[in-house]
Parts: sequence; structure tokens; C-alpha cells
Amino acid sequence: MTPRVPDSPPAILATYRFPSGVNAQKQAEIIAIGQTLGSTGAHFAGREAALAACRGDVLSVAVNEHESFATVRFPAANTERDIGTLLTMVFGKYSLAGPARLVDLTLPEDVGTRPRFGIDGLRAKVGVPKRPLLMAIFKPALGLTAHDHAELIRSVADTELDLIKDDEILGNLASAPTLERWRACRPLIEAMRDRRGRNFLYAVNVTGRADALLAQARALVAEGANALLVNVLVYGYPLLEALAADPEIQVPLVAHPALAGALSLAPDHGIDYRLVLGKLMRRAGADIVLHPARFGSLPFSAGDEGAVIAALREPAGDWPRVFPGPSAGIKPEVVPALRQDYGDDLVINAGSAIFDFAKGPKAAVTAFFDSLEIY
Amino acid sequence: MTPRVPDSPPAILATYRFPSGVNAQKQAEIIAIGQTLGSTGAHFAGREAALAACRGDVLSVAVNEHESFATVRFPAANTERDIGTLLTMVFGKYSLAGPARLVDLTLPEDVGTRPRFGIDGLRAKVGVPKRPLLMAIFKPALGLTAHDHAELIRSVADTELDLIKDDEILGNLASAPTLERWRACRPLIEAMRDRRGRNFLYAVNVTGRADALLAQARALVAEGANALLVNVLVYGYPLLEALAADPEIQVPLVAHPALAGALSLAPDHGIDYRLVLGKLMRRAGADIVLHPARFGSLPFSAGDEGAVIAALREPAGDWPRVFPGPSAGIKPEVVPALRQDYGDDLVINAGSAIFDFAKGPKAAVTAFFDSLEIY
Repeated sequence: MTPRVPDSPPAILATYRFPSGVNAQKQAEIIAIGQTLGSTGAHFAGREAALAACRGDVLSVAVNEHESFATVRFPAANTERDIGTLLTMVFGKYSLAGPARLVDLTLPEDVGTRPRFGIDGLRAKVGVPKRPLLMAIFKPALGLTAHDHAELIRSVADTELDLIKDDEILGNLASAPTLERWRACRPLIEAMRDRRGRNFLYAVNVTGRADALLAQARALVAEGANALLVNVLVYGYPLLEALAADPEIQVPLVAHPALAGALSLAPDHGIDYRLVLGKLMRRAGADIVLHPARFGSLPFSAGDEGAVIAALREPAGDWPRVFPGPSAGIKPEVVPALRQDYGDDLVINAGSAIFDFAKGPKAAVTAFFDSLEIY
Repeated sequence: MTPRVPDSPPAILATYRFPSGVNAQKQAEIIAIGQTLGSTGAHFAGREAALAACRGDVLSVAVNEHESFATVRFPAANTERDIGTLLTMVFGKYSLAGPARLVDLTLPEDVGTRPRFGIDGLRAKVGVPKRPLLMAIFKPALGLTAHDHAELIRSVADTELDLIKDDEILGNLASAPTLERWRACRPLIEAMRDRRGRNFLYAVNVTGRADALLAQARALVAEGANALLVNVLVYGYPLLEALAADPEIQVPLVAHPALAGALSLAPDHGIDYRLVLGKLMRRAGADIVLHPARFGSLPFSAGDEGAVIAALREPAGDWPRVFPGPSAGIKPEVVPALRQDYGDDLVINAGSAIFDFAKGPKAAVTAFFDSLEIY
């Protein structure tokens, strides 16, 4: 028996969109060489075979009246099969080259770091097999002591709330150090678990220099913390991958979209939300990805919303499906429409609508659950 | 003697630019609350004093025909005095809110992680007190073995080249593992040092998940590596800060601008290059920051070029001045103009113009040094 030789080595496909007036064919050729060999190399005689194995090639170009698209194929072997070398290759230096937007990626199975829980694992962890999950956000975002955090949990302790998270702005501040927040909240969280017979998760915001952040995450989990929140675009996908791969950090990871607009909101530059908050988050190990909702307080088109949610949940080889978390200005009134459009595999995420609700947090949680029943 | 009570606590000022049609005053108020307390909090009775200490306020608004500007003052105590919590606060969630561009930051002295070397320290390390430094980039970017890297160094071993760096695309690949590249090059690099009586630095590209990257950096330095290259926008400023603060990593850090265009190239969104490649890099600990030059192969305006270079070198309390590294398509012909505009505190960075030069790398280095003499 002879070993099977595959027809072509594993490849990464990247699709770019250009505004009208840009020669997509020419730009695609610049990308295919510039983002692999870095140079056409007239004087690299004798290296032809090695270079041919590394160079990208233009797979397709499509031009219409308003824009054009090009897809470039890169050898996967040019990367470490991680998000860091992937992003550097497909859009690193080229991002500086002119109006172009990275709009899609097709990735081999082995690129990235698998989410540990995904939708199925998280449902098992919180004991909720079917309905959308409900997550609260501590509010106000700042100005609370660790004791205040515990009191906010006490205010919802006899509800069926599934998760709570820090506001993404809250770091490891002298006024409420991160580990102290967890320590103050832990008894109440474990009492909720014992009363209900199912977990209540607190996604603690991890921050700091990369080394300090990793150490903080390990320390939190060692003291019983049962979920972590990460500002992935601020700290980097490679940091999320490190958390998702760390044997000491066996807890769900919640990805916050802070700074995503700086990469995705401009029309003709940057990277589509479907990648930034969708495919790349899932490939970097997030179990829940928070994102704006079109019914919320941030501008987010139905198209972006649908594309992000699809990227997190659609079948992708044997990659776990992960939870979208529609956020920012979410009120009970918008829940039925979200559920109608996207079904039950959602984490409904609400801050002010719970902790700044006129009738109090407990009544707010009840209102959210009522909104789940009227569907 | 009574302790001095300062009039106002340390503050961070952030300036935003809005396109015409946006109400800058209203947006600034949204930022001042939304990026601090997160909620106006009508029901947060009893917390007024704590909240007042955290909330931002609108310092100024300026409107002209084509655009408007607003400056918001944030309490520095809302951050950990690092770049991660800084960026999350000034532009995290708000980046998703609509057309707005972060164009300036005024930071207290204690925000960030100090560059270990800066211009003075790096000049001492390479023994070049006055002229611009010359840095080569291994080319082709991919397809070389560790042995090939060593041969490229051999080709410039009897020149006065000051530094060499990996291409930013080159990760820890099976074809040329990072540590093996260093091991293959080390004897030649140390021979250059001994021959010249001054260091020749090789900025090795560090990559991988955040934990692996930090471990790789420590392993390289433990084996004698004398500089590191980091794709800061891909791996995150908090990763650069970790490297700059790590007691085991006492080597200059070279920041690459890969992915910066995704944050900075759009006109009305994202973050100005002066911050992304300038102030934030310096505050995160970079000793050399590579950036496009207006004479090079990437589009970069004279305004952006000047603003980035100024941000890296202008006096800023007792923060070290750090080296700008004009890059991408740099040829000997453009060196006199760069030097005329910006003086001698530059790292001239050239790849193809050295390793794809018709007469060979040694002649290319000579041509670059000749270009320094004709000034």
C-alpha cells in the first residue's frame, strides 16, 4: 500500500471586498505575493521549489458596479494554525495598503483553539436544556465595592437567572479588586447553585498585562470562579486562545465586543463583523460571544446580526456551536422578536434593564422570563 | 505639615472626531457616562458619591464646517494604568456606536509600561551614537530554512548593518522553527559583535497563543537572543506590555504595524495612526516602532508620518523617546529626504532593497550607507 498523497495541501481562503475604482485582480495578486513571500524575488535563484510551496494564489475575482471581490488561497502551512499567524498573513501588512475589507475566511478544521463548552456544554453546565439563557450585567459599571456586587447578586438570588457578568469596563481596581469581587460573591453564587440544583455562572472580567491576566484567570478558577469575561479585541485573539487551551482554566469563556467597531464599523476598510465577532471568536475558543442587536441601543444592521449569529452557530466541521449573546439596550420587549428570528440558542444579556429597572432587579428578571413565555 | 490634597485627581483626556451631521456634544455626553458608569442610574440611590468619583465629563466641544471634536475627561482611577483598561474605557463599547474616531489621548505619567531602551538605550546597545540605524528584513519572508537565515546573515556579516529582523509573516513554522532560526544565526551574530566590537541585533518574531508567545520569548532570550519582534495589533498591547515588564526579557522590542490599517485607515472610524503606531506603542513599551513612510510602497500621508514620528520622539514627561522605523519599500534613494525631514533618530528598515538587490546584499548595505553620507 502506498501512502495517499493529497491532491493539494490544506489551504486558507480569504475574501476581500474593494470599493469601485480599485483593480481587484491587481490587488489580489499583490496580496498573494506580498502576504506570503513578501517579494517577487527576481534574485532568489535556487529557491523556486521552496517558494512555490509558500506563495498564495488568486482563486477568483468578481466585479460588479459598486464593488469587487477577490478570493486568495494561502497555504495553511504558512501559519501556526492559530489566529495570530492567520490574521497577520491574511490582513497584516496589507491592511495598510488602501481601501479593502476582509469579508470572509474559509479555514481548515485544525486552525484555532476549540471552545471547551459551546452551546451544548454550557446548557449542561447551567442545567437549561432548551430555552434562551438570561445573563445580567452588574450596573452601575463602576463605583461598586466587592460587597456591593454581592448585594446585587443577593437581589436576584431567588430568581432563575442563569448568568451574571462584570461590565467590560470594570478592571482590577483598588475600589473593587477582581479577586475580592469573586470572593464576596462566591457564597451567594454557591447558595444559588445549591438551592436550584443547577449552576449560576459569574463571568468575572479578566484584565491586565497578558501575563498578569493569565495568572489572574488561573487564580480565579483555583478559587472556584465558574466563568470568565474577556475583552478579546483589546487583549487579542491569541490571549483568548491561551485561556481556552489552559488546562487550569476549565470554565466557559465569554467574549466581549469592546473595540470591535474600530475594526468593523467603517464600510470599506477593516474586517467584517461576521469574522471579528463571529468566525474568529469561535475559532479562538469563545463559548458565548456578546454582540449588539438590531433592537438594542447600538447601530447594528439585521445583516450583521444575522451573519454574526450564523457564524457562531452554523455547522462547521466538528467545531462546537457557540452562543450568540445579543446585548446593549436589551429589554424584555425585544426578546420575542429575537427568539422568533433566531430561536432558542441565545444568551439574552441585559444590564440597565435589570439593575436600573423601576420595580427592582427581581421584577426585571421576572419580566424577562415572562417575555420568554409569550413566544 | 498637612498632606497636600491635589485639586483634582489624575485624569485621562480622550479626544474624538465626528463627521459633520453628528451632534458632538450629545455623543460626548454619551461617552462620558456610557464609558464609565454605563448607565444614568436613576435607581442607584445612595451611591451618588461613589458614582460621582467615577463618571467622565465633557471637557470641550469644537464644531466646524466639516467635522467636530469633543474631549472627554475620565478619572485615571477607572483604569489599571495600563493600555488594556485604557482602550476599553476610551473606545471599547463606544467604538460600535457610530461614526467617531479616537484622535488623541492625554495620559498621566503612570499609564503604561516603560520601554526598557528607547533611543538612548538602543544606541548604546549597538554602539552607534548619532547616525540613523540600518535594519534589514530577511527576504523572502517564507520558504527559508534556519540554515538559509544564517546564510543571509553571512552575506552581510562584514558590513556595518545594525539590525536584522524576521518578516512579520514568519511564525514558528515546521520549515524553520523560531528557536532553530536563532540557534542557526547566533554564532554569526556573535562573530559580528566580536569583529566590530558592537552588537548586531536580530529581532526574532515571537508568535503563538499568548502563553506560548511569552514562553517562547523567554526561551529565546535565555539562549542569547538580543531583540524581539512583535505584531502588536494582532497580539495586543497588553502582550507587548507583558514583554516590556518581564524581568527575563531584557532586550529591545520592535513593534510591527501589521493590522494597524484595519484600525486606522478609514477616515471617519477607528483610531488615528498617531495613537495606534505612536503614543500607544511607546506607552506599551516598544523601543522601535515600524511604520509606513510616505516615500515607500504603502499609502501613508506626510501628516500621519509626521504625527507618528512626533508621538514616538517628542518629550513626554520622563518617558523614553523611542525609535521610529520607516518601512515598506524603503530604498537608498529616499533616505536623504527622510533624514532631512526627521533627523538622525530613525531606524531605516529595508527588506527587498537589501536581499533582492541586483548586486547582492552587501552592495545594498553599502548603498544605504552611501545614502547616509550624501546628506
